Amino acid sequence: MKFTENFERAKKEALMSLEIALRRGEVDEDIIPLLKKINSMENYFTTSSCSGRISVMEMPHFGDKVNAKWLGKWHREVEFEEVMEAIKKHREGQLWLLVRSPILHVGARTLEDAVKLVNLAVSCGFKYSNIKSISDRKLIVEIRSTERLDAFLGENGELLVSEDYIRKLVEVANAQLKRFKDKLRKLEKNL
Amino acid sequence: MKFTENFERAKKEALMSLEIALRRGEVDEDIIPLLKKINSMENYFTTSSCSGRISVMEMPHFGDKVNAKWLGKWHREVEFEEVMEAIKKHREGQLWLLVRSPILHVGARTLEDAVKLVNLAVSCGFKYSNIKSISDRKLIVEIRSTERLDAFLGENGELLVSEDYIRKLVEVANAQLKRFKDKLRKLEKNL
Repeated sequence: MKFTENFERAKKEALMSLEIALRRGEVDEDIIPLLKKINSMENYFTTSSCSGRISVMEMPHFGDKVNAKWLGKWHREVEFEEVMEAIKKHREGQLWLLVRSPILHVGARTLEDAVKLVNLAVSCGFKYSNIKSISDRKLIVEIRSTERLDAFLGENGELLVSEDYIRKLVEVANAQLKRFKDKLRKLEKNL
Repeated sequence: MKFTENFERAKKEALMSLEIALRRGEVDEDIIPLLKKINSMENYFTTSSCSGRISVMEMPHFGDKVNAKWLGKWHREVEFEEVMEAIKKHREGQLWLLVRSPILHVGARTLEDAVKLVNLAVSCGFKYSNIKSISDRKLIVEIRSTERLDAFLGENGELLVSEDYIRKLVEVANAQLKRFKDKLRKLEKNL
């Protein structure tokens, strides 16, 4: 596979795309220093990223991403009140409160570089890190953590749980968010 | 990396471990034909697997696997009544209803074999498939799907949701289980 030969060109393209995304404000702000650090390293470059989030979403059925609609989305701890605001916008389909861990896709020069990065990420708590794809064009490492919450809240405009219950879920979601933000800081420090 | 040189030995060891696990009844029954099919192929072998499950679990806090306790666990669709039976055993910590997708770890002979298997698994719906680890000893592909449910049900012996809500959750859980069982059948057919 020729990914090592194509590394410099792939990195140049990725940095240009990142520059455009940064100007458009499409990159999660709290992850920008980490992206810059990775891109300053000789053997790596970032291709996409999300700093992790808490969201309220409605969708016809679980997994139907195409028809899913965000009612609220936050890359920080949330307050009970703002979650309730989002829930009030629910009209149809299934209503879910979701937590998603950070995810970074990183191009690596060689297989050894890829394995080194996966191992470092795992040691910083990103236990779901892996080699996502390999082709002649590039070798992509995925950095991902285990925090995740998929809580079903209601259906067709009707809330099926109590406000006290949602307060509890918000606590659980915030605890997960704090955990993965700590991991991001640890990764940035140890790179 | 020497995983290709070490493939035959690693496969032999893995098949012996599988044989022992099979005799002890430790392998999920509905996944055995798929494991046998993979192990009959020249360039692959299985190292561990779970066919996916619905479970009721109590734990001090979400994510604390070490101190978690299964109150009920099923590798098939569940009835509302048996879920309630499991829930009644809850005494302390947090109570959760969980769905987890199937997960298979497969050793591959070469990097090309690994990439081929990841791509096939993704095309069968296992969208979280990846190369899990690479070392001199072996090259491991992880086959994993996106279905998941984390429903917080109660705390310290107290149920915080209604029985109607649990009925709904059981429906959602069974729909997810059906989806990933279909994917397993598709994978077995397409291998």
